Amino acid sequence: THALSSEQRLKAMLKVEAALGSALAKSGIITQEHANAIQEACRADSLNAQELESQGAKAGTPVIPLVKQLVAQTHSISESASHFVHFGATSQDILDTASVLQLKKVLQSIYRNLTRIDSEFTNLAAIHKRTPLLGRTLLQAGPPISFGLKVAGWAAAIRRGKIRLEEAAQLSLCLQFGGPVGNLSSLDFKGLEVSQHLADELDLPLADAPWHTHRDRLVNLASSVGVLMGSLAKIARDISLHMQGEIDELREPSEPGKGGSSAMPHKHNPVGCMHILAAANRTPAIVSSLLSAMPQEHERGLGGWQSEWPSFKELFSAALTASSIMAEIAEGLEVDTERMRSNLNAAKEVVFSERLSASLLPKLGRVEAQNLVGALIKQSIKQKRTLSQVAAENTVVQSVLDTDALAGVFDIQEALGSSSAFIERLLNKEVS
Amino acid sequence: THALSSEQRLKAMLKVEAALGSALAKSGIITQEHANAIQEACRADSLNAQELESQGAKAGTPVIPLVKQLVAQTHSISESASHFVHFGATSQDILDTASVLQLKKVLQSIYRNLTRIDSEFTNLAAIHKRTPLLGRTLLQAGPPISFGLKVAGWAAAIRRGKIRLEEAAQLSLCLQFGGPVGNLSSLDFKGLEVSQHLADELDLPLADAPWHTHRDRLVNLASSVGVLMGSLAKIARDISLHMQGEIDELREPSEPGKGGSSAMPHKHNPVGCMHILAAANRTPAIVSSLLSAMPQEHERGLGGWQSEWPSFKELFSAALTASSIMAEIAEGLEVDTERMRSNLNAAKEVVFSERLSASLLPKLGRVEAQNLVGALIKQSIKQKRTLSQVAAENTVVQSVLDTDALAGVFDIQEALGSSSAFIERLLNKEVS
Amino acid sequence: THALSSEQRLKAMLKVEAALGSALAKSGIITQEHANAIQEACRADSLNAQELESQGAKAGTPVIPLVKQLVAQTHSISESASHFVHFGATSQDILDTASVLQLKKVLQSIYRNLTRIDSEFTNLAAIHKRTPLLGRTLLQAGPPISFGLKVAGWAAAIRRGKIRLEEAAQLSLCLQFGGPVGNLSSLDFKGLEVSQHLADELDLPLADAPWHTHRDRLVNLASSVGVLMGSLAKIARDISLHMQGEIDELREPSEPGKGGSSAMPHKHNPVGCMHILAAANRTPAIVSSLLSAMPQEHERGLGGWQSEWPSFKELFSAALTASSIMAEIAEGLEVDTERMRSNLNAAKEVVFSERLSASLLPKLGRVEAQNLVGALIKQSIKQKRTLSQVAAENTVVQSVLDTDALAGVFDIQEALGSSSAFIERLLNKEVS
Amino acid sequence: THALSSEQRLKAMLKVEAALGSALAKSGIITQEHANAIQEACRADSLNAQELESQGAKAGTPVIPLVKQLVAQTHSISESASHFVHFGATSQDILDTASVLQLKKVLQSIYRNLTRIDSEFTNLAAIHKRTPLLGRTLLQAGPPISFGLKVAGWAAAIRRGKIRLEEAAQLSLCLQFGGPVGNLSSLDFKGLEVSQHLADELDLPLADAPWHTHRDRLVNLASSVGVLMGSLAKIARDISLHMQGEIDELREPSEPGKGGSSAMPHKHNPVGCMHILAAANRTPAIVSSLLSAMPQEHERGLGGWQSEWPSFKELFSAALTASSIMAEIAEGLEVDTERMRSNLNAAKEVVFSERLSASLLPKLGRVEAQNLVGALIKQSIKQKRTLSQVAAENTVVQSVLDTDALAGVFDIQEALGSSSAFIERLLNKEVS
Repeated sequence: THALSSEQRLKAMLKVEAALGSALAKSGIITQEHANAIQEACRADSLNAQELESQGAKAGTPVIPLVKQLVAQTHSISESASHFVHFGATSQDILDTASVLQLKKVLQSIYRNLTRIDSEFTNLAAIHKRTPLLGRTLLQAGPPISFGLKVAGWAAAIRRGKIRLEEAAQLSLCLQFGGPVGNLSSLDFKGLEVSQHLADELDLPLADAPWHTHRDRLVNLASSVGVLMGSLAKIARDISLHMQGEIDELREPSEPGKGGSSAMPHKHNPVGCMHILAAANRTPAIVSSLLSAMPQEHERGLGGWQSEWPSFKELFSAALTASSIMAEIAEGLEVDTERMRSNLNAAKEVVFSERLSASLLPKLGRVEAQNLVGALIKQSIKQKRTLSQVAAENTVVQSVLDTDALAGVFDIQEALGSSSAFIERLLNKEVS
Repeated sequence: THALSSEQRLKAMLKVEAALGSALAKSGIITQEHANAIQEACRADSLNAQELESQGAKAGTPVIPLVKQLVAQTHSISESASHFVHFGATSQDILDTASVLQLKKVLQSIYRNLTRIDSEFTNLAAIHKRTPLLGRTLLQAGPPISFGLKVAGWAAAIRRGKIRLEEAAQLSLCLQFGGPVGNLSSLDFKGLEVSQHLADELDLPLADAPWHTHRDRLVNLASSVGVLMGSLAKIARDISLHMQGEIDELREPSEPGKGGSSAMPHKHNPVGCMHILAAANRTPAIVSSLLSAMPQEHERGLGGWQSEWPSFKELFSAALTASSIMAEIAEGLEVDTERMRSNLNAAKEVVFSERLSASLLPKLGRVEAQNLVGALIKQSIKQKRTLSQVAAENTVVQSVLDTDALAGVFDIQEALGSSSAFIERLLNKEVS
Repeated sequence: THALSSEQRLKAMLKVEAALGSALAKSGIITQEHANAIQEACRADSLNAQELESQGAKAGTPVIPLVKQLVAQTHSISESASHFVHFGATSQDILDTASVLQLKKVLQSIYRNLTRIDSEFTNLAAIHKRTPLLGRTLLQAGPPISFGLKVAGWAAAIRRGKIRLEEAAQLSLCLQFGGPVGNLSSLDFKGLEVSQHLADELDLPLADAPWHTHRDRLVNLASSVGVLMGSLAKIARDISLHMQGEIDELREPSEPGKGGSSAMPHKHNPVGCMHILAAANRTPAIVSSLLSAMPQEHERGLGGWQSEWPSFKELFSAALTASSIMAEIAEGLEVDTERMRSNLNAAKEVVFSERLSASLLPKLGRVEAQNLVGALIKQSIKQKRTLSQVAAENTVVQSVLDTDALAGVFDIQEALGSSSAFIERLLNKEVS
Repeated sequence: THALSSEQRLKAMLKVEAALGSALAKSGIITQEHANAIQEACRADSLNAQELESQGAKAGTPVIPLVKQLVAQTHSISESASHFVHFGATSQDILDTASVLQLKKVLQSIYRNLTRIDSEFTNLAAIHKRTPLLGRTLLQAGPPISFGLKVAGWAAAIRRGKIRLEEAAQLSLCLQFGGPVGNLSSLDFKGLEVSQHLADELDLPLADAPWHTHRDRLVNLASSVGVLMGSLAKIARDISLHMQGEIDELREPSEPGKGGSSAMPHKHNPVGCMHILAAANRTPAIVSSLLSAMPQEHERGLGGWQSEWPSFKELFSAALTASSIMAEIAEGLEVDTERMRSNLNAAKEVVFSERLSASLLPKLGRVEAQNLVGALIKQSIKQKRTLSQVAAENTVVQSVLDTDALAGVFDIQEALGSSSAFIERLLNKEVS
């Protein structure tokens, strides 16, 4: 993903070093001329991201070769300015703040995708407020629901995921600046002042203190991404199950060249869901890695911190990809209401048995009601008639329910229960 | 842990079934007499938690045998009331809401522990605001910090963890009530009304809709616990490293019978830290399990949901245990400021080299300053004299720093940099 | 699970302490009378597993209170013998060896279950060697396979899992005995001799050296269990997908009281698969916990080791439960070959399209063949005729394939390809 | 890592397609001329790995655009040959077999690194067979061990890891070839023959049957890598703890530009250990991801399989990097036996207390012996004398141990216990 690439990482690091120059000048530690020279050196594009990474592997961090080159470049502009490159900072300050800048950027794209998903599913929920669909529990047929309720549930999950992400990001994405052991000792009493200017320059909040070995904020953000991926995967799994040939109630938007098979010309594979599920299969473990890395030693840790960036990179890439694909699916999802209806019909006995049972129960009691319904189902299967027909002829049923009541039991719209109310609450608006 | 035991789980389930009776009565679906009979049956203590669990394994859920027995017990009070036991609900409604009630309860104990930890560490940070301590990065000696800054960092991490937990709990711990497929079909148009009464009875918020296969709220809460455990483990790791014989700056509170060895009579093991680290070692994977279980199928899932409770139980038990032990450690932590001082002295060259380097750098430039300091360190080691002594005699140093400036470089209190400012911000209060 | 309960754990610990007494006597370090007294004390059942655990929590290990009580009990038999209780050992020796004994025992039950599964699926594979079944890829219909091939794949996976488990167990389940730091210092030069006697007593192999902080053997065993659970879950997922109402080709064995619903009287839920999937959902993370705990410090670690037992316990419990349930499923699996046939018929166009394409391809080339088949499929759908009918009338098809060849394309038995050969290889025997 | 790069992946895929051409010819399905044309097309280097990946994302697999281009290239050589490109295969056949080829290659490099590590540590163990070192348990000082025993333990763990890896690889790295649903239907009765030729061409074993959704072999291999990483991390953690300034018994080999700090010129960071620990921090979760992905649906799965490659790639990259770095550390590890000795001396009371206790215990009993030693330790600390001095003067001690026996207790070489015997067993050879 672009915003998370090595090139963008280098740019973010340079942005931090440049802003540090400016913050030092504003705090009166260096002159504005010096700051200008540092910033000019940071703009130069002679640095190579790949090279820095391989040099950095040996040094233990890419910041060491980066600073070395920046000093050289600044030196060619102003010798005295070159003395103040990276002044007061430690490698981790630069890398953590660069990470924060990169994650902040990629989150904007993720938010946009989530808004698209929410908006599409909200529309779909309104349209299908009363579209009957076989409910399915434990992968078995159940009472009917409305397709609108299902989609509204998806929309609301994405909306909650976005809110959680935004809140976690606001608390997590703040400046890292503490120097080697987190007390900005080299800046004497001006540490906080420089920090504030640096935070302002980078448009980042200032944490209460450096957080080199307190990773809770960032890991909390990562967890929010993990939870979001879980919701996206839930939707993808639902859609892929609905797309099974024998069910065939939904279809991902099709497009030439998408979802074919190298061996089977007829196939229309749920490629979008596949990508989302594949991405989501890896995210729980990534979150787990980040949680495992939290007990970082003393003022700056060994091994834990250094393991984080690949995890963040993958996690946010996964969320960007998955949310983008889900937005495309949401925008073109094909809904086959005919097939929904015919699947409902095919499962009819099952569909209304709970309602019939519930309507008989106040008079007959739970056990007797369930036994009676069980017997009626068997009878309907044996006689190849509908449950409503055999129920209507049963004398015990007749003694409990009059014709209207019995009709109500088998009325599909009545069977949707509180669906409409729930949809309106989920979408937080009235749905006509 | 008590609040998470099988016995308490059964009690919570009975509480939900009783409250459902009451809610049905308030909504006019059953009479108050019926509700009373159901509630009386739920109070009976003839039910056995272990038995229900083993019966439940076969049925797939303990709610099926529970309801069967509740029906029988209600029947012995009022036959007609027995028809309405569990009316409108599905097994998962009862189990999810019982889980919510249990987690809510155990969180209260966790909060209390966190408050104790925060309060103790806050006091300790104030006391040791200016106590010098060797800073350590990558498990190597670094510039000095104040012990107060370290402890303030611990306190603030716990405080953030508590706030995150409280916020997640408020959003997550809400009523589950949806019937088989989440539309409360059996209750016809009264679904929402019964839900609201049920939520009020149980003092739980009402979610916008049933959330049988949308686990994001609960998993987000679990992640918050996971992040908290990471912070607790960070502190435990720090303390255990400080307790190493060769460092010996901190000691867990000792107590007869605690932390001994079956083979080594002299040992004072960091048993508290050990328990916390052991608990924290398992939590990232538990969070990962819960995230993996999120893609639950359709209206109620197969396998994912059923895997959750053991994970929640372990995770919250771990947090309860770990926070309780950390509270005890915090309340009795022995701080050896003498040893902190002597370890600092032993590492002296290292301690001030960054400050010396930083003070020479504006004049000499980064590379030259670092080279000079490197040479001075080697000289001081070779001559077995302190870095300040050899620096004071060096003519280049003299040309850059006057006597006062050089004294400032080696002044331990000045070396603490912005520690005090950061401590105050971390603790969110002025610290004298 | 019984073999993994606290009670059995205490028994295993006592078995180790008793065997240690015997080994010390055989090595001439103590008298046989002393050994007898220690063994008698270990047989006494006055110890309470729960109590030891809670006392152990404070001490850091249950072995400390256990030894204390054993000393007291031995003392009441022979004062001088009591001096040699636990002689030479450290707590971890006792706990690790007890774990090994418990795991060895539970593995026997797991092996038995796996043998049952393998045997049932092997039979089923032979019976259904030529039973046509719709192949499914990416949850979409594909070319036909034989049901026998699918089941043979299941059988072989379980067989491989069992072999891996047995091999890992043989290498992993060995005696732990090293004293405090792994050199049996208290036993002077007799360390190895006592170790060998102890290993013989307990019928365990003797590792090359104590392995207090080298957990690779045990974790490798745990991983093998994890992989086995993955195979069991693959089978459970397959069966549960086949059990979907719209597909309905397989059914778990039914039994009164099993798989019902508290709200839906008609349901026949895949409860067995559910339990297996739920158990398997947690195992990857447990393996991950054990892997994370491997970097244990120095001679005996802090936190890592202490986190292991709950993970082993859960992992092996999960495998025991899941293998037992799968054995029951395998023994009673209902196979609906009629439904398999009708689902194949319903998907007919899809089923043979790859074969038709492959048979046209040598003459027409890949692209043209696929395009032609695509067109024929569309035609068959539009005209509501079978693919074989429209293919037979197509002049291009006629120019490539004669009547016999075309019939072969649409012959379901020919379409099974190498199924029989693969089945025989998978089952490692000829299948008539 | 090179062998796992996108470019090498493309090469491996082309190798499989070329070998398939050859196998088809050997089986008489196509002519040798056709095979030659296909192989020639596969040798062309006009294909771009990055492009294929991005095209593949849309199609769901890079094999679809790859085959398209191969067909075009073959077509330019021989039209009729182009019809048989990829004949009989499905995308997953190509990708799985390419993965197998890549993993096989990278394993060779890992083996070489492991051999280097084993060999260096074996030498070191022989050299330091009798070098005393403070044993450490629960991060506290314990009785002495020999450094040789510690290093021999490391060597043996790596050796076991290598053996496990080799065995798992031999069973796991086999040909994947099954066509769309695993029965090679398009090849009629020649499926097995083509498979055998293809396996021979690629020098891979032939599995009993295609294993599209049975991932147990590969995941078992991945677990072995995970376990190896745990052992590498255990060693890295040990070394980094030994490198702490206050302990300073070991040092990673130093080199200009390695392990410095951007802010602290004096630092010699354990950069090698850091990289290993960072890599190992992520591997447990990667193994967990692969285990989680095992329940793959039916004949070819949705999401699970597609999530695997990034995990394999990272896991094996981590093992390659970590083993290479550990080999460098092993080859240059600086051992400070002076410092080991002085740390032992500094902890003297602790070091011999267990031996003293054990030598008194047969006469005094456990409790009395431990109490006496505890008192002697306190006395020695108070009087600032050694434990041996105060013990020698104690009348109870004198009554139990004569002068020689007491000297033996405090003899460091005797205190090493069975170290030598264990070292020889661990290294599987006599060590002089």
